[in-house]
Amino acid sequence: MQGTMLYGPRDIRFEDRPEPKITKPTDAILRLSATCICGSDLWSYRGIQSITQPTPMGHEYCGIVEEVGKEVRNVKPGQFVVGSFATSDNTCAICRDGYQSSCVQREFMSTAQAPFLRVPSADGTLVATKDLPPKELLPSLLATSDVLGTGWFAADAANVKPGKTVLVVGDGAIGLLGVLSAGQMGAERIIVMSRHATRQKLAREFGATDIVIERGDEGVARIKELTKGIGADSVLECVGTQESMMQAIQSTRPGGYVSYVGVPHGVELNGEQLFFAHVHLHGGPAPVPRYLPELIKLVLNEKINPGKVFDLTLPIDQVAEGYRAMDERRAIKTLLRP
Amino acid sequence: MQGTMLYGPRDIRFEDRPEPKITKPTDAILRLSATCICGSDLWSYRGIQSITQPTPMGHEYCGIVEEVGKEVRNVKPGQFVVGSFATSDNTCAICRDGYQSSCVQREFMSTAQAPFLRVPSADGTLVATKDLPPKELLPSLLATSDVLGTGWFAADAANVKPGKTVLVVGDGAIGLLGVLSAGQMGAERIIVMSRHATRQKLAREFGATDIVIERGDEGVARIKELTKGIGADSVLECVGTQESMMQAIQSTRPGGYVSYVGVPHGVELNGEQLFFAHVHLHGGPAPVPRYLPELIKLVLNEKINPGKVFDLTLPIDQVAEGYRAMDERRAIKTLLRP
Repeated sequence: MQGTMLYGPRDIRFEDRPEPKITKPTDAILRLSATCICGSDLWSYRGIQSITQPTPMGHEYCGIVEEVGKEVRNVKPGQFVVGSFATSDNTCAICRDGYQSSCVQREFMSTAQAPFLRVPSADGTLVATKDLPPKELLPSLLATSDVLGTGWFAADAANVKPGKTVLVVGDGAIGLLGVLSAGQMGAERIIVMSRHATRQKLAREFGATDIVIERGDEGVARIKELTKGIGADSVLECVGTQESMMQAIQSTRPGGYVSYVGVPHGVELNGEQLFFAHVHLHGGPAPVPRYLPELIKLVLNEKINPGKVFDLTLPIDQVAEGYRAMDERRAIKTLLRP
Repeated sequence: MQGTMLYGPRDIRFEDRPEPKITKPTDAILRLSATCICGSDLWSYRGIQSITQPTPMGHEYCGIVEEVGKEVRNVKPGQFVVGSFATSDNTCAICRDGYQSSCVQREFMSTAQAPFLRVPSADGTLVATKDLPPKELLPSLLATSDVLGTGWFAADAANVKPGKTVLVVGDGAIGLLGVLSAGQMGAERIIVMSRHATRQKLAREFGATDIVIERGDEGVARIKELTKGIGADSVLECVGTQESMMQAIQSTRPGGYVSYVGVPHGVELNGEQLFFAHVHLHGGPAPVPRYLPELIKLVLNEKINPGKVFDLTLPIDQVAEGYRAMDERRAIKTLLRP
């Protein structure tokens, strides 16, 4: 088969790769129905996170089970499944506590921008639907694998509850689905920081009530103005830079909650500043399996349509163009059809 | 009257100071029954936190109301009161949310190592007892003003619940009362990091089940060993240095809770490291008024004896010796009798 490889900054190639095979009795092999490019893939694509050798790409996926190892019990060939970007046994103490993305057996998926995929710890990582889903729901089902699961975790970790005022820092796909998630959790007011018309529009569609275009100190001042001078109850940091993190912390009311869900790049938090901000801070890789059954149900019942974040769909052999479009902010998120 | 002033590193003087007077209609003047020296006073005493001019000291206090401003309703002359180290109106949105130590009207108390004290926002800051308490309870009542209130917040912010495994980093008075608090909240196992025999003994008296003497990587390894390889559920960071903060974060299970309650000095948290630690982090100045009524009741009913942390009592004119004893770790905490 062919698969996606990153050779260096802005050098994506779709080239011959070995067909994945069962290597452990807990593995499954999937024939992917859809896969996509993640905002986090851009860190290495742009060379901000350096790679030392040609690196396979992709960690969001859904598809049909082709084959399973002999210890796999929960999924079987022919079923449609969605899996998390991080594998988990879903039985260890950390998984049982709902933190599957820090499972003692965790592996980060990294070869999903391809037609076939090996998934370790299949029983704990994959969730099967009862029937084969209709084609038009594939983008939204794919979204549950990471980008929606991560936006949902962002809202949950920021303690979003009915009636709360929520701020989302970042108008990428995760930020936008953070908006959708906050709306589903009953937030009364959802403020989004965005300067991009297409994204502002989608944010409003997903439930945003206010858009703030200011940044830095002016952005903080604007949020305070919108929140009776004290800051938002729940703030979802969905970018991962020093500026966005400080923007988030400073816009939160004392006693409020800040979540951060993208791997921070070059972020250092000053202890004293954090102390007097008086906020709760929680984040990390989203434990998608905690939410996956519920999210899949919401999609299948057409209560939510997170697939709208895919504003570009390409055949997978055009993956390089998919990266370019996201890098240049021409696309929010690119879906790839194997 | 005379009061305590810091002139520079290790230069404490007890000298003539103006008698405090009502300056706002919301003020009260107290005749202090007891005051004390805080571990945090040592940062400036040692010159780690520099001062630019002679500075009055002291923020923990209890005593008899002498006089109140004309808008004060909740306390009256002759009553015994305990107050928080930070003033609060207890009516603003932040106070109502339980974060009184970030009240919009907050002032940090700083002249309490003296016989008389002006307390701003008296109605929101002071809690009166029904009767004058017996003398032998004064140390424990004084403790509720900050050191117990802060230890209690540390346990609460670290989500201590019945059955949990708790780690306390730091064997100062706050760490020791963090142990007591965790015990009151039903923790099953309470591990304390301490290398000091007197403090280990008091920790055990307050409910510690395990003592760990290792530090740094060895300390983390020992905690992992004691917690089935995954780390503690709740970790109370009660020191405020880079080393202690990293010790706390690395000893916490993914999904677990870290609190920090001393002003961090020179602490920088790496975003990526924090992200993959997957912990909840919460701290700041303890909102003592949230807990004060309950803590005073526990003391008056003799359910707890936090006053045990005062292992040195001096007449207030010997305050300089009180600082020396704490600086040299000869005393855990010094109570001063005006």
